[in-house]
Amino acid sequence: MSDHAFDAAISLQPAGDNLFRGRTSAPYANMIGPFGGVTAAQALNAVLLHPQRLGEPVAFTVNYAAALADGEFAVEAKPARTNRSTQHWLVEVRQAEAIVATATAVTAARRETWTPASDPMPPVPRVSDVPPPASARRGRVEWINRYEMRFVSGGFPETWNGADANHSRTQLWVRDNPPRPLDFASLTAMCDVFFPRIWLRRSTFTPLGTVSMTVYFHAGDAQLKASGTGHLLGQAQAQAFHNGYFDQSAQVWNEAGQLLATSHQVVYYKE
Amino acid sequence: MSDHAFDAAISLQPAGDNLFRGRTSAPYANMIGPFGGVTAAQALNAVLLHPQRLGEPVAFTVNYAAALADGEFAVEAKPARTNRSTQHWLVEVRQAEAIVATATAVTAARRETWTPASDPMPPVPRVSDVPPPASARRGRVEWINRYEMRFVSGGFPETWNGADANHSRTQLWVRDNPPRPLDFASLTAMCDVFFPRIWLRRSTFTPLGTVSMTVYFHAGDAQLKASGTGHLLGQAQAQAFHNGYFDQSAQVWNEAGQLLATSHQVVYYKE
Repeated sequence: MSDHAFDAAISLQPAGDNLFRGRTSAPYANMIGPFGGVTAAQALNAVLLHPQRLGEPVAFTVNYAAALADGEFAVEAKPARTNRSTQHWLVEVRQAEAIVATATAVTAARRETWTPASDPMPPVPRVSDVPPPASARRGRVEWINRYEMRFVSGGFPETWNGADANHSRTQLWVRDNPPRPLDFASLTAMCDVFFPRIWLRRSTFTPLGTVSMTVYFHAGDAQLKASGTGHLLGQAQAQAFHNGYFDQSAQVWNEAGQLLATSHQVVYYKE
Repeated sequence: MSDHAFDAAISLQPAGDNLFRGRTSAPYANMIGPFGGVTAAQALNAVLLHPQRLGEPVAFTVNYAAALADGEFAVEAKPARTNRSTQHWLVEVRQAEAIVATATAVTAARRETWTPASDPMPPVPRVSDVPPPASARRGRVEWINRYEMRFVSGGFPETWNGADANHSRTQLWVRDNPPRPLDFASLTAMCDVFFPRIWLRRSTFTPLGTVSMTVYFHAGDAQLKASGTGHLLGQAQAQAFHNGYFDQSAQVWNEAGQLLATSHQVVYYKE
């Protein structure tokens, strides 16, 4: 195993049939509880590590039922149905016997078939032309420091002045910090690196939390490996804010322009 | 209860703690098994009917593990975690003890808070200016006849000539046929009315099946009731087709222009 903080964060120990144990990770701490992207990666990793797994992830949904407390958790990943080329998974993450997250996954043995070019990357400057964040902007929450984020547009609000930005779109180049070869777990986590759309839209600091996130994978293990430690272009925007919940739609391309994942989430906001 | 075919299709009988029984519906039959939108609505309805339900649906994901056989099924809907204002659900649909679908749902007691106008409806002709489908185009599968679909753009391919359309976007006005007042169950089903994006893109008849669908609700019961039996504008498009699986992103507005739901699915295709 590598000594990368992400590998340590998602590592799970077998603890019985369908059961694994893990620990929350201080390097990926959020304001309250862990960075949701890592919780998602931990839940997915129970499927990835399962001895009965068939194929590679195609769809993954995680529901955040409660903030995880610092410390141990158990993950149960059950193959709910195994077909000839697809498999359906039910996942529960528990602390002190209470469910803190649920997830479902579909894995599949893909066959090579008609695969046209995906939706193209929007026209953006190359990574090398976008300055990395100044070290003075070190994140106020720890997990932010685990990613190199180069904002192309829709950066973090400079001032909380309550002005309606009339848009909620962010584009950024992102990779693990330090760099780490891309895989399904890290791609899943990176689908959740976008700071909350409502902060961008309103320039107002609003308490919030993601309640559900879905990731669709449009690449196999070989394509992810080929992306290596290169940057990914992430794009995210909201479509609706309604009485306490807003959505986010996101796309993630590699530097070669392949759309590796599309992702969606719905986020609670307090006021 | 109304005598609408949709109400009959989603009706469930209590059969024990967290357990309900239902039947597949001949009026909503698809080529193989039932229309997936109705399977989704049946799974959601187990949550809606559950005596311990808190609040209204915010997020719902259904995973199609196998084609349902005609006849009875059981739905188990378990409240996995109940918080102060949110509740997380795990749902399994079974036939002959085998899982045929899994689902998760988040329900929530919403509070009135900052709610700006959602993403606007694209500029399209009014319902009354779009001709209804000719009766000669009666669907080859039964469920199609349960919806009034007025295609604005991206209609069903006229010929299977294999031409790459270079786009996958459909816009249509849709409602139940005959009309039925909108609710969470029917809105969920209508998120799945779009014919497969790959047929539009390739003008090629490709065997396929949805493996997972997510719906985010951006409206409460009051807004859905206010939509009444009016038409909904649905828009759907794919972003990536990769080795046997493609995605679909969809938006559904009411005639007043409110974005009621955003939805996503990933679909298996054979060749």
